[in-house]
Amino acid sequence: MTLKKKNLNKEDYIPNLAFDSVIFGFNGKKLKILVLEYRNTGLYALPGGFVRRNENLEEAVKKGVSERTGLKNIYLEQFQTFGDVKRFDPEPMKRILEMNGLDIASHGWLLDRFITVAYYALINFEKVIPKPDPLSDGIDWYSLDELPPLMMDHQQIIEKALETLRENLDKKLLGMNLLPKKFTMKELQQVYEAITGTSFNRSGFQRKMLSANTLLRHEKRFSGNSHKAPYLYSFKPNPFDNRLKPYIGDKSELR
Amino acid sequence: MTLKKKNLNKEDYIPNLAFDSVIFGFNGKKLKILVLEYRNTGLYALPGGFVRRNENLEEAVKKGVSERTGLKNIYLEQFQTFGDVKRFDPEPMKRILEMNGLDIASHGWLLDRFITVAYYALINFEKVIPKPDPLSDGIDWYSLDELPPLMMDHQQIIEKALETLRENLDKKLLGMNLLPKKFTMKELQQVYEAITGTSFNRSGFQRKMLSANTLLRHEKRFSGNSHKAPYLYSFKPNPFDNRLKPYIGDKSELR
Repeated sequence: MTLKKKNLNKEDYIPNLAFDSVIFGFNGKKLKILVLEYRNTGLYALPGGFVRRNENLEEAVKKGVSERTGLKNIYLEQFQTFGDVKRFDPEPMKRILEMNGLDIASHGWLLDRFITVAYYALINFEKVIPKPDPLSDGIDWYSLDELPPLMMDHQQIIEKALETLRENLDKKLLGMNLLPKKFTMKELQQVYEAITGTSFNRSGFQRKMLSANTLLRHEKRFSGNSHKAPYLYSFKPNPFDNRLKPYIGDKSELR
Repeated sequence: MTLKKKNLNKEDYIPNLAFDSVIFGFNGKKLKILVLEYRNTGLYALPGGFVRRNENLEEAVKKGVSERTGLKNIYLEQFQTFGDVKRFDPEPMKRILEMNGLDIASHGWLLDRFITVAYYALINFEKVIPKPDPLSDGIDWYSLDELPPLMMDHQQIIEKALETLRENLDKKLLGMNLLPKKFTMKELQQVYEAITGTSFNRSGFQRKMLSANTLLRHEKRFSGNSHKAPYLYSFKPNPFDNRLKPYIGDKSELR
């Protein structure tokens, strides 16, 4: 695909609106983030894009992230829209256009203020190989403590994504299939350590987890040495979940 | 204020972007929603607005909601951005412009597709008196089971707001000061019943709440008849909260 084909015509897109994605890669032990490097600019950014006038926001995000990263069928969750005026900074985009031989006159709309809708995803970085789009010369997984300096407010977007991920970690772990239905205390601890970025003392972690009363204990996971076999656990369902159905439009359950 | 002053000039605003607010009113027992009625149109809508080119999204929302509802200093939380193409429907907006004597030619941008950033708030409806803006002839609190038919996808926006509110209700109750720090089981049950829209059996509710192990029991609340005095409870802090600090930029805590 030539760069010409990637020309972004103002008429085709909703102006002033972008999306960005924080793609967390996790292999059960380590948490990384997918970052793009723009060709010949030294500029690093989250994979993002724009929304066509006749396209649903969610479709644009799904297609855009897949094009820019080469990753297919990622489940992305919207977490926040960033709309501060100070996000506005035309300089990085100017450099990206220049270094890619795209003329600034016909891409002026890209230098205007943008409000961005941010999404995150959590996938296993061992199972996918990202491929960059034509405007980027690199895409790679970075550990949280080795992130390059990012464009605009992308660092802040990552921080908010992490905050969201850490809230109700137990619910998300299940939802995103990061843990099997039944898991050992050690597996659970590894996930918490990677995502919270701290290490826990083994017995302290176990005590806190059990006192939170959200785990069910099952049979042991048998391997070679059976008296060392660890117990398996699962998350308890929330006792109120089955009562919390929306009741708009169904008044039969109302008082 | 005359309607003329409310003219919305295309040049002043970010095109194709709006915001909407779901303002829940709650008095400890009943949950209501604030709905606007547009003058002479029979159209009902959530209070919303647009973002000026030189204005932060959050500022616009804060100012807009306060102007349209007359309510000051409400804490609004962003929960989702709605961007489906099928939200687009110019007819209601045409009627609103016509019935208010605003010419369509110079307000054509208002008839285009809009992506909306949605916010919600939870306030005590007994403590505030809403006042509509000049384009609306009514603003009122409606019970969830007596909502009028709403414009566009506003019903869906309310459903999503409710879903968000119901997730982690205990955390939100504290954050939004819906309950005092210490409360009785009956007060807690009233809040759950109003927000989930179902009624619970008293002893079943108490059993579930205690089994979830998120409450701390304190002294009794003494009133006249001391042996009938109910116990006071508070929410336990999440045992991991103090370990879940963001660690970007502070690597001292890293492994």
